[in-house]
Amino acid sequence: MPQTTLAVTLLAHTPDALSLIYAAFRQCYHPGYVADMWPRLLSGDIPGDRQAEFVSRILASGHESPIEHVSFTFAVAGVSRALSHQLVRHRIASYSQQSQRYVDAASFDYVLPPAVAAIPEAKARFEAAMEQAGAAYAELQEILGRHGRAGKANEDARFVLPNACETKVVVTMNCRSLLHFFELRCCTRAQWEIRAMALAMLGLCREALPVIFGGAGARCERLGYCPEDERFTCGRYPRRFENPQIPA
Amino acid sequence: MPQTTLAVTLLAHTPDALSLIYAAFRQCYHPGYVADMWPRLLSGDIPGDRQAEFVSRILASGHESPIEHVSFTFAVAGVSRALSHQLVRHRIASYSQQSQRYVDAASFDYVLPPAVAAIPEAKARFEAAMEQAGAAYAELQEILGRHGRAGKANEDARFVLPNACETKVVVTMNCRSLLHFFELRCCTRAQWEIRAMALAMLGLCREALPVIFGGAGARCERLGYCPEDERFTCGRYPRRFENPQIPA
Amino acid sequence: MPQTTLAVTLLAHTPDALSLIYAAFRQCYHPGYVADMWPRLLSGDIPGDRQAEFVSRILASGHESPIEHVSFTFAVAGVSRALSHQLVRHRIASYSQQSQRYVDAASFDYVLPPAVAAIPEAKARFEAAMEQAGAAYAELQEILGRHGRAGKANEDARFVLPNACETKVVVTMNCRSLLHFFELRCCTRAQWEIRAMALAMLGLCREALPVIFGGAGARCERLGYCPEDERFTCGRYPRRFENPQIPA
Amino acid sequence: MPQTTLAVTLLAHTPDALSLIYAAFRQCYHPGYVADMWPRLLSGDIPGDRQAEFVSRILASGHESPIEHVSFTFAVAGVSRALSHQLVRHRIASYSQQSQRYVDAASFDYVLPPAVAAIPEAKARFEAAMEQAGAAYAELQEILGRHGRAGKANEDARFVLPNACETKVVVTMNCRSLLHFFELRCCTRAQWEIRAMALAMLGLCREALPVIFGGAGARCERLGYCPEDERFTCGRYPRRFENPQIPA
Repeated sequence: MPQTTLAVTLLAHTPDALSLIYAAFRQCYHPGYVADMWPRLLSGDIPGDRQAEFVSRILASGHESPIEHVSFTFAVAGVSRALSHQLVRHRIASYSQQSQRYVDAASFDYVLPPAVAAIPEAKARFEAAMEQAGAAYAELQEILGRHGRAGKANEDARFVLPNACETKVVVTMNCRSLLHFFELRCCTRAQWEIRAMALAMLGLCREALPVIFGGAGARCERLGYCPEDERFTCGRYPRRFENPQIPA
Repeated sequence: MPQTTLAVTLLAHTPDALSLIYAAFRQCYHPGYVADMWPRLLSGDIPGDRQAEFVSRILASGHESPIEHVSFTFAVAGVSRALSHQLVRHRIASYSQQSQRYVDAASFDYVLPPAVAAIPEAKARFEAAMEQAGAAYAELQEILGRHGRAGKANEDARFVLPNACETKVVVTMNCRSLLHFFELRCCTRAQWEIRAMALAMLGLCREALPVIFGGAGARCERLGYCPEDERFTCGRYPRRFENPQIPA
Repeated sequence: MPQTTLAVTLLAHTPDALSLIYAAFRQCYHPGYVADMWPRLLSGDIPGDRQAEFVSRILASGHESPIEHVSFTFAVAGVSRALSHQLVRHRIASYSQQSQRYVDAASFDYVLPPAVAAIPEAKARFEAAMEQAGAAYAELQEILGRHGRAGKANEDARFVLPNACETKVVVTMNCRSLLHFFELRCCTRAQWEIRAMALAMLGLCREALPVIFGGAGARCERLGYCPEDERFTCGRYPRRFENPQIPA
Repeated sequence: MPQTTLAVTLLAHTPDALSLIYAAFRQCYHPGYVADMWPRLLSGDIPGDRQAEFVSRILASGHESPIEHVSFTFAVAGVSRALSHQLVRHRIASYSQQSQRYVDAASFDYVLPPAVAAIPEAKARFEAAMEQAGAAYAELQEILGRHGRAGKANEDARFVLPNACETKVVVTMNCRSLLHFFELRCCTRAQWEIRAMALAMLGLCREALPVIFGGAGARCERLGYCPEDERFTCGRYPRRFENPQIPA
């Protein structure tokens, strides 16, 4: 029953990403065929900073669809099933997640919330709960197996596994979907665990494609104000209705 | 910690569903404007069985998109978080799910797998595990609250809640997405719990719109053979490669 | 070759729409099962204005997904293929469009742009072009038919049909997708024809479900500023970077 | 008014595509973290043919979602607006299309259907129609410009442009969406032009990723029978109901 920690690895992304986005934007307004321009984009004959400047300007005006042509694929581990249940609610994305029906969880790893870890009494109670869940799982596997349910034992025994149980998932999102994901999940209102994962993903995206992700983050970064109501705002940006300059 | 059972309620579906699908199909091939024909569809001037016959015939040839115009909305309760995690993987759908971050789970209900319920020893072990998880949740809430984390106590304490924990969800899918959902989840290979929910949904759909759902079900029903490999087939239909008449 | 005009008819929408959205929002935060509350929502035991107030407040904080449970289906006619080509770019929607492969266009109707209609010289030139296209289509049909291509004559002859050619389409979108559609297409920057259609749809939505659509419209209505750059802004709202109170 | 011909260029695809799909499939059933295995997939330590064999077997059993992690981006030119209107109906895809609102079409290229090209009389009639449409467009531009509508002249003049008018588009689809696209558009029932484009795309996909696309094509290839009704079948495969061995 060991504790685990977040791991986010960028497995792959669409190559020549900036040039591809530039080409896609250009095709909308250009009379020629961007495939003819493509070698000049890759060779630097049309310089990268000119490509970047063009993309930034069009993007700022709200024309977002061309960034969909570029996707990022991450492998994620050390996250809880509580996290993955939230993650897969993002529908413009592809997921391949470790199955609790097929993978034995007899010695599962678990995620310990930092707020629990910070309080020795809470940490001890949490760890005891993990031990209890692990024991219940193993005993149910054994009982079900003894009664001829071996093939389906994992499937039914997993009902006693906790949300804290580690899962692993391969996730692909295009840049537009990623920006939306970051808007929601980099917000301080997001749950701490998915926020940590989103920030790790954002860091990798920024490194790979700064033109798109340099200014990405929570919704307030783009809107210029906090859209949450007063119970939930973190105070980093003014709320919409607090600022008389922002029309209601 | 009481045990709960599946509840599926059809809250709403697009009205005049057969006529709407008929109108949508007709608009593809008809020179006129289907809004002009619409009152005659509702009045029965164009009889329902003629509408049904037309829809069935076109649908059989693989032209499926017009059935997307009709959606069904279900409220579901008495299902586990193991189920809901699978459910929300269906992306052409809308979900509103009870939040474990905001709703107190101190006296959560749980789903007991039938194979566990059938073995007294397993049932007792399972129930003990539910009690243990409930106690751990309550104690963590209390400890976190005592340490000034009251506002976030549910969010962190829920990490010890089991997959068996009941959830409730409102789900909307259009007919095309429902057919696909039934293909996968009415199959005997599907997990027993989501299969029971899918069969309950299918029953309600059949009653409301038999033209579309009368013949719906697992993939084999539509394909005429089982696409699974030999380890997983249930034997109800021949596997593709067992039948020499079905080209590989 | 007669001129045609826009027709937008609301064929159907999800019934009890406000209550369904209220129920979906409530299920997220409520310990009970909304199916138990459902009869009281329909009977008015929980008054409509209380439902509306709750929905408005949650929606304002940016929690939009529950409005997806409600869909609207429109029949549209008197629109050009230029419009429909833009329309079907909205991907979270369902379309059933009149086929130029299967429907004879020998005496097609056409859409006349208002700016052309306002200039007699332009109008005459436009109408002559429609006559020429109609004649070319009919002659090609005849030639292809004479050469044994009767079955495919429409399919190939239609290559000479103009963008102005009328099409008819049945379109379904859920409320969230509609709000996004209105944001883009009710903007003065949108093409005049799709903007007229969007405004007609918005009028029908407002009447049916004012809680959701009362304040809907172009992006500036929600953002409080115009996101377009200086070449494209209509001046109705300040541009983002003109207003020093709105952080860049 | 020159005639144009189809051009399809593969601009980019997700790198290490087979390994990425393998890793995603494996993560579903594997207790470890695929990021740890990733270097061994790229180095050939886990050989490519073993990866291919595993992917083929799982895919054959109907588990398709892991192939979504890999996307292909094509630039397409020499296609008509009739084609692009069909293309963009495929919703699980991203498009950046040349705009007729912003790009001047005064000397547009056009697509000539082969059946028209094969009949000299039809070809001459078609070419005359193109000349007429081009002249009408140019004259309307001029009239509208003279009446102070220069900024919007293209937008309104384009209503006289024919379906045959060339367009250019950058399109991205993931492998699962591509397989579905090929099922519909490689069928002999598809319109000749989009079928030619689909076959060109399929050729490029096969070369880049034979494991996934080696057996791809029209629906009959996968089903083992033709799902179309008797009016539309091409005869290459038996129709479902003609073969008594295929259960209805």
